[in-house]
Amino acid sequence: MLVKSNIRKIEATSFVHPLKVPQMADAEQVLKLCEELSEIELVALIPNLKGFQRAKQTKISEINWVTAATETFNYKNIGMSIEDNFAQFKQLVQESRTLNITICFSIAVSFGCPYEGKVSPVKVISLVERAIEAGANRIGIADTIGIATPKQVKELLTEVLHIAKSIPIAIHLHDTRGMGLANAYAALEAGVKIFETSASGIGGCPFAPGAAGNLATEDLVYMFERMGVKTGIDFEKLLDAADFAASLTSNGSLGRIRQVEKKRGSFG
Amino acid sequence: MLVKSNIRKIEATSFVHPLKVPQMADAEQVLKLCEELSEIELVALIPNLKGFQRAKQTKISEINWVTAATETFNYKNIGMSIEDNFAQFKQLVQESRTLNITICFSIAVSFGCPYEGKVSPVKVISLVERAIEAGANRIGIADTIGIATPKQVKELLTEVLHIAKSIPIAIHLHDTRGMGLANAYAALEAGVKIFETSASGIGGCPFAPGAAGNLATEDLVYMFERMGVKTGIDFEKLLDAADFAASLTSNGSLGRIRQVEKKRGSFG
Repeated sequence: MLVKSNIRKIEATSFVHPLKVPQMADAEQVLKLCEELSEIELVALIPNLKGFQRAKQTKISEINWVTAATETFNYKNIGMSIEDNFAQFKQLVQESRTLNITICFSIAVSFGCPYEGKVSPVKVISLVERAIEAGANRIGIADTIGIATPKQVKELLTEVLHIAKSIPIAIHLHDTRGMGLANAYAALEAGVKIFETSASGIGGCPFAPGAAGNLATEDLVYMFERMGVKTGIDFEKLLDAADFAASLTSNGSLGRIRQVEKKRGSFG
Repeated sequence: MLVKSNIRKIEATSFVHPLKVPQMADAEQVLKLCEELSEIELVALIPNLKGFQRAKQTKISEINWVTAATETFNYKNIGMSIEDNFAQFKQLVQESRTLNITICFSIAVSFGCPYEGKVSPVKVISLVERAIEAGANRIGIADTIGIATPKQVKELLTEVLHIAKSIPIAIHLHDTRGMGLANAYAALEAGVKIFETSASGIGGCPFAPGAAGNLATEDLVYMFERMGVKTGIDFEKLLDAADFAASLTSNGSLGRIRQVEKKRGSFG
């Protein structure tokens, strides 16, 4: 349904430990089924080299490597220090040289951590610089717990874009505190062009207490299209996908526009 | 409870026709009870001269006069043309000269109308200019149906602030489509310093189909305080007021932060 709405890049699954995140134990099967979809770039989240060994057997076009900006979150999320995590990333870059895979380095809890609180932009900037030096093809700045403010987003992303030069920068937003769209607007103003969201806002993070879902794709598409920012996405078909995604979760989805814009396909 | 949270200016009621909006028929009694509260500026919404005749018998310090940016909305909301409405406003300014009352001229559906769709900024700007010329002490720009985008807000409010010079400009936001905080951020960036919101986001407009509540005061205060914008408001006490406000409505309230920030008084 997302592909029908013209979305062309989808993070379809994660190669995380099947006992730690049993929901993702079927990563290989999901990707195998996704291969039948044409015109789509498949992304998988990879937390460590073990995940990479599994991922490289599949037909993904992009790896989303995740390192946290704080030691505590990195331990809770990935079970190792930032340094050990980064050493594995460098090895992954070496091992993937002969493969045709884009390597994205994402930084979790870039704006605030459920365990350590405030996160200094200096830590994030340092990881961005090291990841680019190590050979990352793309950088992701993640507000894993939806704690960022538009001011933080504007300041940090302006600096990251300046450092990254031609390396594309993505922002990954959660809408836990209702600031998702405000943060997306601030990121857009800073010059960000890649936004990571989920249909109907489902999702979260099992290792981030209180984390609600991602910013809803349809909320972002609605706001951007109404602002004249062309997304190339069919809004009506995206709403169908969002309705379906929402029907799969018992948590209640976060997306807002789906409840309001009944005249589908219209941007008023 | 709002006064306890340090909010000092409250639009407490509306002098609308008691048969058209029976919820507001008790305007005089509400204001009479509010007089017992010290250190508070009371505002009342006034749609016409009849409302003004009632309002001037009370101890309000500010009148919020509402004219719509579109003819259709003005007819549905106030039952007369914009010109007739404006003629009444000019008369009100004359009649209030001897009274110690601030006159705010608010423009409903400034960004979009449920009946006429898109609203040209030219119409809003023209009303702003005429209202200032007529003697308005303050201008309010209202997104009555929560349809504005941050881009619209930034562009329109930048122009309005430029025209208004020393006349204070308020923005009145609804959160119908989840863009309330994004629009508040855009307005702040444009230079707006007055924000009209409601505790827990209750409210709406009986003549605007589909209109949901205002932007929740506590959502705005949370975002602003976390951005370093001092509001002077006690967040913990504001949450108490918001909880109480939410308990008064069966519609479900829109505010988001109240559901998330259980550690009250903390800005993380």
